[in-house]
Amino acid sequence: MTSYNFSAGPGVLPSSVIQQIRKDLEQEENSHYSILEISHRSAKFEQIIAHAEKRLRELMAIPADYAVLFIQGGGSLQFEMLPLNLANQKKKIAVLDSGNFANKAAKAAEAVGKSVEIVGSSKADKYRFLPELPGDFQAEQYDYLHITTNNTIEGSTYHQDNLPQTTGHLVADMSSNILAEPYDVTKFSAIFAGAQKNLGPAGVTVAIIKKDWLAEQKITGVGPMMRYQSYIDKDSMYNTPPVFSIYALSLVLDWVSDQGGVAQMYQNNQKKAEKLYQYLDESDFYQVPVQGADRSLTNVVFTTGDADLDRKISQQADQEGIHNLAGHRSVGGFRASLYNAQPMAAVDTLIAFLERAKQEN
Amino acid sequence: MTSYNFSAGPGVLPSSVIQQIRKDLEQEENSHYSILEISHRSAKFEQIIAHAEKRLRELMAIPADYAVLFIQGGGSLQFEMLPLNLANQKKKIAVLDSGNFANKAAKAAEAVGKSVEIVGSSKADKYRFLPELPGDFQAEQYDYLHITTNNTIEGSTYHQDNLPQTTGHLVADMSSNILAEPYDVTKFSAIFAGAQKNLGPAGVTVAIIKKDWLAEQKITGVGPMMRYQSYIDKDSMYNTPPVFSIYALSLVLDWVSDQGGVAQMYQNNQKKAEKLYQYLDESDFYQVPVQGADRSLTNVVFTTGDADLDRKISQQADQEGIHNLAGHRSVGGFRASLYNAQPMAAVDTLIAFLERAKQEN
Repeated sequence: MTSYNFSAGPGVLPSSVIQQIRKDLEQEENSHYSILEISHRSAKFEQIIAHAEKRLRELMAIPADYAVLFIQGGGSLQFEMLPLNLANQKKKIAVLDSGNFANKAAKAAEAVGKSVEIVGSSKADKYRFLPELPGDFQAEQYDYLHITTNNTIEGSTYHQDNLPQTTGHLVADMSSNILAEPYDVTKFSAIFAGAQKNLGPAGVTVAIIKKDWLAEQKITGVGPMMRYQSYIDKDSMYNTPPVFSIYALSLVLDWVSDQGGVAQMYQNNQKKAEKLYQYLDESDFYQVPVQGADRSLTNVVFTTGDADLDRKISQQADQEGIHNLAGHRSVGGFRASLYNAQPMAAVDTLIAFLERAKQEN
Repeated sequence: MTSYNFSAGPGVLPSSVIQQIRKDLEQEENSHYSILEISHRSAKFEQIIAHAEKRLRELMAIPADYAVLFIQGGGSLQFEMLPLNLANQKKKIAVLDSGNFANKAAKAAEAVGKSVEIVGSSKADKYRFLPELPGDFQAEQYDYLHITTNNTIEGSTYHQDNLPQTTGHLVADMSSNILAEPYDVTKFSAIFAGAQKNLGPAGVTVAIIKKDWLAEQKITGVGPMMRYQSYIDKDSMYNTPPVFSIYALSLVLDWVSDQGGVAQMYQNNQKKAEKLYQYLDESDFYQVPVQGADRSLTNVVFTTGDADLDRKISQQADQEGIHNLAGHRSVGGFRASLYNAQPMAAVDTLIAFLERAKQEN
């Protein structure tokens, strides 16, 4: 039985990448010198990490005045590194509260001693749409505006043509839709993304930082591991990097490139998401809470409106090899994550299952 | 040609672990649900991380009043987390300067705003022996004393029977000899170790923290990702942990256990190190700078006394499949890392090579 994995992260990777990893391990098996055992100072790894950076720069058209860094600790550590490194003039940041992770970022910035202002929120409306920047937003009062491009739990996205317009620095948590649709990097002063959705296995996070902005900062009381400059100075090898995770990420980037790059990913993701949203919208059984324009291509959130029934159907799905369909524990319902590596066959199988579940319930 | 890998880290892993990983990936290859793709909230991973913690507790006899945490960022992030979390009363720590990593720890503690006193150093003697705690050491003036049990670059070790005696809290960087010899955990208030020497691939770090000591601390201005309590409260899953690295670590711990535990590792490591040191000491060509009692079992450092010749021989070794024999770039010479997974055959091959190199040079 083919199974499908709708996990919101760590999520599905391209099958060919899993195969490549397995083959590489097989070939290296008795060498005592596999990718799991080599020094980060080895020529082999230096090539891998340089290649990964180059590929990501190509795929996202990242200009030379941005650093591309590989850091451990996930998006949550970036919630702390960003304000420590980049909120040193006003010591105050603005956050658009579009969901759970925007809130976590706000709380982390406060925890490290910065002021935080929630300049827009759709919390009162259960995040069914995205908060907009108020017309009288004063960018100069803040070091930067923090947004979450894709809200993994709530299923909404600031798409490329709908980004908040600010004259100040825009910082984006792109963890769950990096490489899922094309964003113009030059609109941002910093972007970060945990790998475990669209870039590779968990264990490495990409940070893309505008270097002249970082250079303006006066940073005190922050250790070297929490400073972007340490990673810039040492090509992400200030200390031992997560070698295997970066190797796997480089394979995923190659796969994206081979498939036709971000433009092709975007086209595939639109097809997958449109098919599923269309089915859900036309059914008289499932509802999508998020309004049309703000809907995510990577995390499709829906519900029958009956929490017990949602739970029952998710469990049934799991038994049929359709894994991790349950929504995040904080919101319930369903969530189908359609990351780049999710094949269209997964969507077709899911729709067929949902239709059966509808008939039976 | 069989090759051997004397890398100081990331270093060699047990061949059976590499095989197991490859087999697991093969079996899961078309499941869309391999260890590289599963959610950290899945039952499968919850079992893996719980098992890893249980195994490590067994292997090191870690009492229940110590937390066992899995954290990203390597030992270098611990250099910052430790003082941020545990140096809040005197805001001052003592460090025994036994080499490069002790110095890095001292500098990181200063960077995060703590006072640091180097209470002993063998730097002037090029770290050929370990610094001792002065007789008049006043433990109560410091939050803790930081030591590096094994000095990876310098090739020296505070062995289990030669730990500094302090009435205060003792904190140990055990990155390069955790599980290599038995230490009594109760002599320490905190222990940490990056995985990439004796525990698994790079990408996860173990921290063992005495809970009642942590509970005494008043911590301010520190974000949740830098607080041990966040990891304690969420069983090391405050955010997405490095799933694959923890899985690989759990396999390595099982291997250690299957081999007979730390006592057996110690016996093997003694045999390997004694054989190599004996050869080196008896040769009239190679010298070991570190004095007998302080010598490391895991990192055997030596030289011909001629930097150019050392370099030439290391390159020759590499061509013969004996990889990473060069000493750290800061000290030169040779370094043979004999971690738990290093087979005796590697030592025999190395000695035969060194003898040939001696004849030829």
